[in-house]
Amino acid sequence: MRTIEWDDSDSAVKMIDQTLLPGELKFIKCRNIAEVCEAIQSLRIRGAPALGVCGAFGVALSAQLSRSNTVEGIIKDMNAAGDAIKKTRPTAINLARGVDRVLQAAEEGGLDTWLVKNISLEEAKNMADEDAAINRKIGKNGAKLIRDGDVVLTHCNAGSLACVDWGTALGVIRSAVADGKKITVLACETRPLNQGSRITAWELQQDKIPVQVITDSSAGFLMKEGVINKVIVGADRITQESVYNKIGTYTHSVLAKEHNIPFYVAAPTSTVDAESWDGQVQIEKRPDDELRYIGAGKELNVPIGVPILNLAFDRTPMENISAIITENGVFYPPILIGELIL
Amino acid sequence: MRTIEWDDSDSAVKMIDQTLLPGELKFIKCRNIAEVCEAIQSLRIRGAPALGVCGAFGVALSAQLSRSNTVEGIIKDMNAAGDAIKKTRPTAINLARGVDRVLQAAEEGGLDTWLVKNISLEEAKNMADEDAAINRKIGKNGAKLIRDGDVVLTHCNAGSLACVDWGTALGVIRSAVADGKKITVLACETRPLNQGSRITAWELQQDKIPVQVITDSSAGFLMKEGVINKVIVGADRITQESVYNKIGTYTHSVLAKEHNIPFYVAAPTSTVDAESWDGQVQIEKRPDDELRYIGAGKELNVPIGVPILNLAFDRTPMENISAIITENGVFYPPILIGELIL
Repeated sequence: MRTIEWDDSDSAVKMIDQTLLPGELKFIKCRNIAEVCEAIQSLRIRGAPALGVCGAFGVALSAQLSRSNTVEGIIKDMNAAGDAIKKTRPTAINLARGVDRVLQAAEEGGLDTWLVKNISLEEAKNMADEDAAINRKIGKNGAKLIRDGDVVLTHCNAGSLACVDWGTALGVIRSAVADGKKITVLACETRPLNQGSRITAWELQQDKIPVQVITDSSAGFLMKEGVINKVIVGADRITQESVYNKIGTYTHSVLAKEHNIPFYVAAPTSTVDAESWDGQVQIEKRPDDELRYIGAGKELNVPIGVPILNLAFDRTPMENISAIITENGVFYPPILIGELIL
Repeated sequence: MRTIEWDDSDSAVKMIDQTLLPGELKFIKCRNIAEVCEAIQSLRIRGAPALGVCGAFGVALSAQLSRSNTVEGIIKDMNAAGDAIKKTRPTAINLARGVDRVLQAAEEGGLDTWLVKNISLEEAKNMADEDAAINRKIGKNGAKLIRDGDVVLTHCNAGSLACVDWGTALGVIRSAVADGKKITVLACETRPLNQGSRITAWELQQDKIPVQVITDSSAGFLMKEGVINKVIVGADRITQESVYNKIGTYTHSVLAKEHNIPFYVAAPTSTVDAESWDGQVQIEKRPDDELRYIGAGKELNVPIGVPILNLAFDRTPMENISAIITENGVFYPPILIGELIL
């Protein structure tokens, strides 16, 4: 079961609607760019690698939908779609990378209108297949760091649902379990959208990997009490200086350092951004209403009139990270970004 | 407006139902011990000092309700009520202290049945009045530590709603504001029952003190970004070794230390427990369902079958605390519990 794939019969981008989990496992189909953008903005699909593939499929979809009968016209439509998709979420670099990859393939190989449509779609499909393969490699590389009996803390969802399949942080867990190790995962709820309690817990339960849910603020005390052996998280962007990931990741890194617990980041090299410095990366602020109201019934959680600061991401400096696991291997401090992407 | 008081006309314990905030400000009346216990267990009333007064009023209520016509019989009923009340919540010491204080007054001064009922009620009322006065002193003592322009992080609710009036941590803020200082409060949501976003934000908004709500896991990054100048929290119990307070407090203390931000605890000396060691204090685990479901609509937040660890409190070691503020003054490290209660 893939998180996102191309539906040939319907010429649509098919994905799990993650906002409905764990109550309901439902696939939706995006048949135009507005639907793709809405799915990203509403977090029906989320997770850096999955967003990359979604961006790629989105641009490929725009090629199929283009009514132009020239290569230039189709490419123009694809560029417009790519711009719209890139704007939906600013922090994860993979989204823009996925868009650009399909655009580049179309521009380079699209000698006629049939080819531009075909190449776009094949490139997006290749990217999805590669993502699954890369995650298996990340899992294999990272599994060596996990010991039989470990209790591993994770934050948000860096699992199969954040990717096409297998997962990054949870891919490492899955590979360790596949190697016969007994692992227990502590999943932080991950406010305000609860990707940890809703999605990470759900996908580990599906795989029969022991998981227990805690509030985000319990992690520190459980480290102090000696309950947690390792921390492993994903990444939305890795720069020279920092790992950008779900808000709360930085806090876990400080707590891990305080308690001498290894803090690992698992991510594909497509997450690496060697060109940006911290000041240049936008940290997405999500709508207040994600915190203002609670539950489907929209119960008031923050009084009307009280301002909210709803940061979606934070940045963890390299010095707080014990190792970064990519498809290329395990990289220990001093972590040099050039080595990650060699 | 007091959080809890005795209703003479109705011979009942009257309190704000805090589970309905911020949507509705409603007073409820507890007319028997079962209603008092339910109010405590369901967190209609919470906060260590308020629980102390609630315990006192509960025992006084049992004296009024007693059908016995002997002093011994009434005291027996009061003891039974006190035992039931003490069992509702184990971590905050104030609850047991409030119960014991009224029992002791009744036993010492209750020479006849009229006196035992009257003394019980007067002792509970005195305790409520004292709590309000003590909080004013805590506020005055702590206000000296707060500077004009400070952005102060707080966790959970250590405000007027956690006490009879004014508050402990928020009492310090209120006193600093009354002194003419401009303070901004960052209120952590405080999962899973959201006392920060629902109650702290509400009571500061009522007093027109600037407050902004953040997720619990945002605090670390906001400290790193230099947004937060001070942390101030309440306490449910202070032992020789640790401060027991809402889960997440320990995490904030580690983060404050990492970022060289003062970490203050504001609490009345009635919270001090000089006799217990860490291993002896029970850390309350609250029901799974507080995290399993979200909102009034009981939307699924954690898949059925996935276990939950819902700790209500943690303990912060003395070495992480910059000062403890009580009605007796400000105490800096090395903090000796004997000095706190002199």
